[in-house]
Amino acid sequence: MATVQDIRPRLLMGPGPSDVHPRVLAAMAHPCVGHLDGQFLAILNDIRAMLQQVFITGNPLTLAVSGTGSAGMETCVVNLIEPGDRMLVCIAGVFGQRMKDVAERAGARVATVEAPWGQVVAAGQVEQAIRRDGPFKVVGIVHAETSTGAAQPIEPISRVVHEAGSLLLVDTVTSLGGMAVDVDGWGIDACCSGTQKCLSCPPGLAPVTFSPPAEQVIASRRTKVQSWYLDMNMVRQYWGSERLYHHTAPISMCYALHEALRIVLEEGLQARWARHARVHERLKTALADLGITYLADPEHQLPMLNAVRAPAGIDEAAVRRRLLDEHDIEIGGGLGAFKGKAWRIGLMGESATDRHVDALIAAMGAILA
Amino acid sequence: MATVQDIRPRLLMGPGPSDVHPRVLAAMAHPCVGHLDGQFLAILNDIRAMLQQVFITGNPLTLAVSGTGSAGMETCVVNLIEPGDRMLVCIAGVFGQRMKDVAERAGARVATVEAPWGQVVAAGQVEQAIRRDGPFKVVGIVHAETSTGAAQPIEPISRVVHEAGSLLLVDTVTSLGGMAVDVDGWGIDACCSGTQKCLSCPPGLAPVTFSPPAEQVIASRRTKVQSWYLDMNMVRQYWGSERLYHHTAPISMCYALHEALRIVLEEGLQARWARHARVHERLKTALADLGITYLADPEHQLPMLNAVRAPAGIDEAAVRRRLLDEHDIEIGGGLGAFKGKAWRIGLMGESATDRHVDALIAAMGAILA
Repeated sequence: MATVQDIRPRLLMGPGPSDVHPRVLAAMAHPCVGHLDGQFLAILNDIRAMLQQVFITGNPLTLAVSGTGSAGMETCVVNLIEPGDRMLVCIAGVFGQRMKDVAERAGARVATVEAPWGQVVAAGQVEQAIRRDGPFKVVGIVHAETSTGAAQPIEPISRVVHEAGSLLLVDTVTSLGGMAVDVDGWGIDACCSGTQKCLSCPPGLAPVTFSPPAEQVIASRRTKVQSWYLDMNMVRQYWGSERLYHHTAPISMCYALHEALRIVLEEGLQARWARHARVHERLKTALADLGITYLADPEHQLPMLNAVRAPAGIDEAAVRRRLLDEHDIEIGGGLGAFKGKAWRIGLMGESATDRHVDALIAAMGAILA
Repeated sequence: MATVQDIRPRLLMGPGPSDVHPRVLAAMAHPCVGHLDGQFLAILNDIRAMLQQVFITGNPLTLAVSGTGSAGMETCVVNLIEPGDRMLVCIAGVFGQRMKDVAERAGARVATVEAPWGQVVAAGQVEQAIRRDGPFKVVGIVHAETSTGAAQPIEPISRVVHEAGSLLLVDTVTSLGGMAVDVDGWGIDACCSGTQKCLSCPPGLAPVTFSPPAEQVIASRRTKVQSWYLDMNMVRQYWGSERLYHHTAPISMCYALHEALRIVLEEGLQARWARHARVHERLKTALADLGITYLADPEHQLPMLNAVRAPAGIDEAAVRRRLLDEHDIEIGGGLGAFKGKAWRIGLMGESATDRHVDALIAAMGAILA
């Protein structure tokens, strides 16, 4: 049996996880203390305060769910939705579809608006859906659709949603820390993210934040949240001043997130977003030189997730295998409708550097030559 | 803001987390690779094989859920239960009550049998409940009730449950790796555990295993599992040979569990159980010398979780605070009915050593003197 120590490091340029800073790895390896130890509770307080800065929100109900990004999305849905509630889900890729599935499992009566893969949803479509099928308790949308590389504008949708009196749920798993996400400025009521993308922390926690109106909705539910584990009415009593035991917090992952958030804030959000944008441009130019084109609408491309067409006649999986085996570089394949046809190149957090781009382009050039 | 590196290590002798071996911390700090990287998939295969050894089962559906122990219990319940299904839950403490809550949230019609705190449930009670209120699709019980320190015999209950044609769900969060747990030998159909107790891995993953009949029940559900995140019909396609992407696995936590399981199996299960039993006897003798008595029925005491009465007239929380502040030793307080009246002393995994017992007894002796 191989040991973990035998694992060869890679340059992580897929859809996540991204490279992790050695400071974060070192923090994670610090000895565990108890989940009710004052030293650890101080770490949780710091995490909440730093997440508020990164989400750009004053929401008191801001914390890291003890699961990966998908658990964060499920947390938002199951806490806001009660059986029979109406929810509108915007779908333009795999993660919008996933939100619909999660909502239906929570007992929501779901309507959808859809955009072609690679495109974004227009505010007018949402407005129309609300007029036609509304009102909805919650409207859900993905900010950074990891399956297509498209960046969904949130503000115009938010206006329409709030005019109709609905709550806005936004999945920022891939965008948070790598481009503008402004929870309060954009009027987001429930926002979920993941740690392993632009925050460059290992996967395992899901930052979430709820606006005061959303928190009120959760506090005044008629029925219990269907998930005991993800029930914010209980989890918040552990993260809050009550410190009531709910479940044992994942200590080491919280250590890692604490250090990762410190690094994010040391760089500064604006500088970090600018770095992601700049490195994205470098990649885009270099890919164009190789004749490789993007799948997402040119006006709505994510900086941190570059979904591109695999050139015709190329076995895309074989290229990815050679990148991994011969160059220790990981990129992702296509998901869903793009399976077998696309590459997804991540430039996230510690992986958003010139040297990552240059190493990948040199390796791809050699393989495709 | 303090950093993680500033955190003072403690001797972890509460109800979990337990002390973590430096090899496990080092494994966790190894650079992340992708969740579809062959190197990581080999780690998952090893984890499954080692969990099968630790659970003592041949169950193919054996894996680590991406959440803490409570997520493991919820996984067992929500995968086996469909709305309206009948479930019998045995309650003799906080974690039995929790199972009832989880089951009701999953839509189960729940009946209960109860035992006084510190006692165990008799097979005859279960038999009677089945005759009176059955049949039940699932009967759920906690093997090691962490709130009372009582060890619930499973085999007699299993016979009764299977004679009635029900599935047996057992929570072994606290017992696995510290005393006999024999999934196949005892006829357990769904078994969940946690990593931060006798496996001495940081909290964050929940080992689970399902028998072939339980797997069949899950595969032939009429309704979707209410939790997308915990849906074994999807998760098993990632852990299985299909390697279908479901959610991003918590890479670093899997590294940690891999190394922790290696350590468990290097010691050997029998030797490990014997060590826990031996160190428990050492503690019990020393506590008796201090005049401190156990809460659990003497015939059914857990070795790894020693729930004892705080001496009359003592502020139990103040003692715990002094142990932590002056001696860097953590023990737990009472939960539920035992809140303010009990200490819970953990001897789990790396924390089950003579030196842990001796350090605690010396410190308690000094404080109580």
